[in-house]
Amino acid sequence: MSWTLRTADLDDLARGAALLGTGGGGDPFVGKMLVAQALGEVGAITVLDPEELDDDAWVIPVAQMGAPTVVVEKMPRGTEPELALTTLERHSGRSADATMPMECGGINSMIPLLVAARRGLPVVDADGMGRAFPQLEMETFSVYGISASPLAMANEHDEVAIFDTGTDNARLEGLARGVTARFGGMAHIAQYSMTGADVKRTAIPRTLSLALAIGRSIRASREQRLDPVQALVDGLTETIYGYGRVLFQGKVIDVDRRTDEGFARGSVRMAGEDGDELEVQFQNENLFALRSGVVVAMVPDLICIVEADSAEPVTTEALRYGQRVAVIGIATPPIMRTPEALAVFGPSCFGLDREFVPVESLERAWPAQ
Amino acid sequence: MSWTLRTADLDDLARGAALLGTGGGGDPFVGKMLVAQALGEVGAITVLDPEELDDDAWVIPVAQMGAPTVVVEKMPRGTEPELALTTLERHSGRSADATMPMECGGINSMIPLLVAARRGLPVVDADGMGRAFPQLEMETFSVYGISASPLAMANEHDEVAIFDTGTDNARLEGLARGVTARFGGMAHIAQYSMTGADVKRTAIPRTLSLALAIGRSIRASREQRLDPVQALVDGLTETIYGYGRVLFQGKVIDVDRRTDEGFARGSVRMAGEDGDELEVQFQNENLFALRSGVVVAMVPDLICIVEADSAEPVTTEALRYGQRVAVIGIATPPIMRTPEALAVFGPSCFGLDREFVPVESLERAWPAQ
Repeated sequence: MSWTLRTADLDDLARGAALLGTGGGGDPFVGKMLVAQALGEVGAITVLDPEELDDDAWVIPVAQMGAPTVVVEKMPRGTEPELALTTLERHSGRSADATMPMECGGINSMIPLLVAARRGLPVVDADGMGRAFPQLEMETFSVYGISASPLAMANEHDEVAIFDTGTDNARLEGLARGVTARFGGMAHIAQYSMTGADVKRTAIPRTLSLALAIGRSIRASREQRLDPVQALVDGLTETIYGYGRVLFQGKVIDVDRRTDEGFARGSVRMAGEDGDELEVQFQNENLFALRSGVVVAMVPDLICIVEADSAEPVTTEALRYGQRVAVIGIATPPIMRTPEALAVFGPSCFGLDREFVPVESLERAWPAQ
Repeated sequence: MSWTLRTADLDDLARGAALLGTGGGGDPFVGKMLVAQALGEVGAITVLDPEELDDDAWVIPVAQMGAPTVVVEKMPRGTEPELALTTLERHSGRSADATMPMECGGINSMIPLLVAARRGLPVVDADGMGRAFPQLEMETFSVYGISASPLAMANEHDEVAIFDTGTDNARLEGLARGVTARFGGMAHIAQYSMTGADVKRTAIPRTLSLALAIGRSIRASREQRLDPVQALVDGLTETIYGYGRVLFQGKVIDVDRRTDEGFARGSVRMAGEDGDELEVQFQNENLFALRSGVVVAMVPDLICIVEADSAEPVTTEALRYGQRVAVIGIATPPIMRTPEALAVFGPSCFGLDREFVPVESLERAWPAQ
């Protein structure tokens, strides 16, 4: 069902999107401020249920591209994603009927809302990642045949770039990543233009609704003095994600983080009260959780680190020694676990030479604490 | 006066363009082969004198961009510059009435001919460098107010990129250079679209004719067993360049050359019979000639290294220990020596903290041998 997003929803949506960012995707805080400002002028944004989209509607997704470590220090002007969208419209000779997230996790939940508010467009309640991923070609859109080309990029100086690499989406990622670095580590992009029919076929549905529901759950359980981590996990069973589990609780004892090739890479180690340790490895997003060297959750399933008492999501760039955290594993929907999907964003795409095993299957070997 | 270029002209034109490349610009040999093939199908190309251009004609210059050290090992498919031109036409919504060199020196004398032959367009007898330069913004076009944006790039996989950085041409150079590196060290570009009136105002006229005349002079003097180096220098007095001088004759004793940031950088040292030494420093092109540490010719004047007995131009990537060479200094036309021009491609733009001194003024201090 389509619904109306108002300023009062933004805090919950941002918190839920931060969780779906699985440590990456950029802190939604800055994006939320920009959307709040734009919403102040228009009042509301229509969020279109994908099933209610016309089959021949033209949808242009938008996103921010860059290393989260840069994004927290470099405030967008707010015009960039709209300029990327209009540049792509002009290039393709076709105007957007709606915009859509490419990535519902992190700041990229907010960027389409900014465009929607400024342009008076509806936003589709769906995305192509169902979480956050570090690279542009890691989209169900491309997995199921939507071309990533053409892509338009814009920055705060009104500089624009357009790329078309035909069917080679990985090449497109490499070219756009290079320009992002030269734009100062951050760019705003529009790409994966598609029809409403293609949205229904290739997108992960209702992920903006999911982010909002997660955010509301965290807030409500805090207000009601319930355990927000457990409430969050329990609430997932009613969504298309269907499964969540607390993998670990403990204290951060080591963070290894560096920014190279435009990515924030590294790992965090946590120690539990019983001396157990968990390591989470990340490339912008959390990719693998390992206990004593054994993988207990793996990409594309979601590995979310939250503050233990408040369930506040902790992004990789905010990890600090001494934080008390819980690590949650969440199953991704079936559309993200097909062989075609795992070939694009499964464990082997991130250097782990191993078959994907769903987090709910790993439960048997490694029971929740 | 406009004229007709035929296959029989290509050898002379390529040799003259190689000389104007001042060691860079890429060996025209590969470009010549591609043009010869295309000319075989159409027979002739119309070379338009800039004074005969309609003021409202639309001219789109084309060029190859990259390190010469890569270009000699990577054969273009031949479709790339035409794809860059059509991409820019489509982006701007305006078709070209003619193409033009951005750079008359080296392979970039040939690339517009390739487009002209394949597309059936005339080529304008003018360019924006009057030689070769290592960077895109080093054009009289931009010096005198023509925007370098938008720029279209293409490669042999039919991948295209478009950039628009508004009035900031140096930014455009940086962005395009990054994509060139990711294209494998070579790209073909179309940019500096302008009217016929702007060509007359900003371009260096008749530089294709000049290259052809230089090539013919070298060939004729070889055939007539005259000194081709001296004949070449003498012939310059009748052109808008107006002045040339043999700076040095000797043997190559050391070559320091590396490819970094997409450029071929380094220096060559030569020793004369009397023990004198000359050093020429280059960044793709020869920039400075120094005798005992004293500058005897400097960019934007042309410093051309040729084989001593044949006047065959030697590009920086072809420099080898033991070669017997002559080094020729050639004055650039007044349009390239204004304060505005020297601010873009004068000595200080290449790291020499010194006022430009014309090569003909340096003659008094350092007489020709």
